[in-house]
Amino acid sequence: MILDGKIVRDKILDEIKEKIKREDLKIKLAIILVGDNEASKIYIKNKEKYCDYVGIETIKYTFTNNTPESEVIELIKKLNNDISVTGIILQSPVPHQIDFDKVSNLIDSNKDVDGFTKDNIYNLYLGKETILPCTVKGIIKLLEAYNFSLEGKDIVIIGRGNIVGHPLSLALQNKNATVTVLHTYTKDLEKYTKEADILISAAGCAHLVKDYMVKNNSIVIDVGVSRIDGKIIGDVDFDKVKDKVFAITPNPGGIGPMTVAMIIDNLVELKERSKNG
Amino acid sequence: MILDGKIVRDKILDEIKEKIKREDLKIKLAIILVGDNEASKIYIKNKEKYCDYVGIETIKYTFTNNTPESEVIELIKKLNNDISVTGIILQSPVPHQIDFDKVSNLIDSNKDVDGFTKDNIYNLYLGKETILPCTVKGIIKLLEAYNFSLEGKDIVIIGRGNIVGHPLSLALQNKNATVTVLHTYTKDLEKYTKEADILISAAGCAHLVKDYMVKNNSIVIDVGVSRIDGKIIGDVDFDKVKDKVFAITPNPGGIGPMTVAMIIDNLVELKERSKNG
Repeated sequence: MILDGKIVRDKILDEIKEKIKREDLKIKLAIILVGDNEASKIYIKNKEKYCDYVGIETIKYTFTNNTPESEVIELIKKLNNDISVTGIILQSPVPHQIDFDKVSNLIDSNKDVDGFTKDNIYNLYLGKETILPCTVKGIIKLLEAYNFSLEGKDIVIIGRGNIVGHPLSLALQNKNATVTVLHTYTKDLEKYTKEADILISAAGCAHLVKDYMVKNNSIVIDVGVSRIDGKIIGDVDFDKVKDKVFAITPNPGGIGPMTVAMIIDNLVELKERSKNG
Repeated sequence: MILDGKIVRDKILDEIKEKIKREDLKIKLAIILVGDNEASKIYIKNKEKYCDYVGIETIKYTFTNNTPESEVIELIKKLNNDISVTGIILQSPVPHQIDFDKVSNLIDSNKDVDGFTKDNIYNLYLGKETILPCTVKGIIKLLEAYNFSLEGKDIVIIGRGNIVGHPLSLALQNKNATVTVLHTYTKDLEKYTKEADILISAAGCAHLVKDYMVKNNSIVIDVGVSRIDGKIIGDVDFDKVKDKVFAITPNPGGIGPMTVAMIIDNLVELKERSKNG
């Protein structure tokens, strides 16, 4: 079975679009771009497109490459205090004079669309309600969309980055899965991957996961992105692995579309928080 | 081999005692006790004893059972601002009118002996320098004292509590171990425990770990504490397991003594931070 991220994304977006219209929700996303990273511009255009589709207003703040950190901080403080703004994204990467961790942590945790501020990570750690990082939420929502349960499952994650592997391991433990995190120092990847009910690869290493490394009838989620000769290559050797497993995400077309949809989903969650808070 | 926590504790304390004397360090620990939990009183007496031994001053603040939260908060704020105070401990448990998570988080992260404040947990999550929770640090220091390396090791933790299992999994990942966390929803404990180079049990379930569950020549660390008929029983069936493994902690006498020593160790670390900061 192919886990089609585009179909699930579209379904989620249509539900949100309907909800926003029905409840007349006024949601506004502020996006901050510093410098002229071409990939960032594409990501932002994508976010704007989906926001526009569901009826979320976006406002973009563009700074030149050599903007001092203080100017960005000042803007974030202004946006934190602006009750018309529901969520704030500081687009990564930023130029070297700006400390991304420090500055992005100044975003009010109640406007933290990406779920990476200290408060939201701490709540994730404690197993309390939190805004989940978009890729993490996208993985969980995709599995839930196909009615796969996580409780008690043996889940193996390859990769321990702060964007995916690390927060994902906490989120899946909170869902009562048994989680192992593999990384570059792991002695024997195969020993673990072969036993996984659900294998999630977020290593960014092209075709790392081969057919002999996965368990029959398991679920394989490919989060990795490598660019080779201008083509996006996932972590999983899809053509060979797909016949052995029960379900698998294509890449592209799996977790990528889900991640963008979760930005929208988090914005709605932040809006509901602000109404209740 | 028996990993003797008392011997390592004594060695660490003697080194610290010597260092405090040599460098003429003025270190003061403030301990806050609310209510009259008998176990808490014993724990505190223990902390005072070792502080006294190495030359750390302690000051104890005792509140009655029905003290309002605001009074405790006021004291913490005062102690945060008192430059003569190196570290602050709010003894757990506290009476119901006090929100432990909230109040203990008001302790300045630079005076957070227990390593549980949001800032220190966030740094642990990010893999940055942090004050490690005492039990977690005690486990790592005990393994290091016997020259066991952690990098690349297959480590299995039983238990995912916020005091041990959860922060330990982050700390061991930061040490480049491959970590799996087992818990009550895990389908098959044995499948994992049998493969562990290092098995650490922090379940609080008497004699959960039997000899057939451990790998030959592995290392077994017993953090669990169950009280049965007034006797402390560990998570590991020590008498049977000890002959199969390469190294094992007794319990009591393993991680317990190390945990107390790490309070002292953290106080010295906080003192050095305050000198450099």
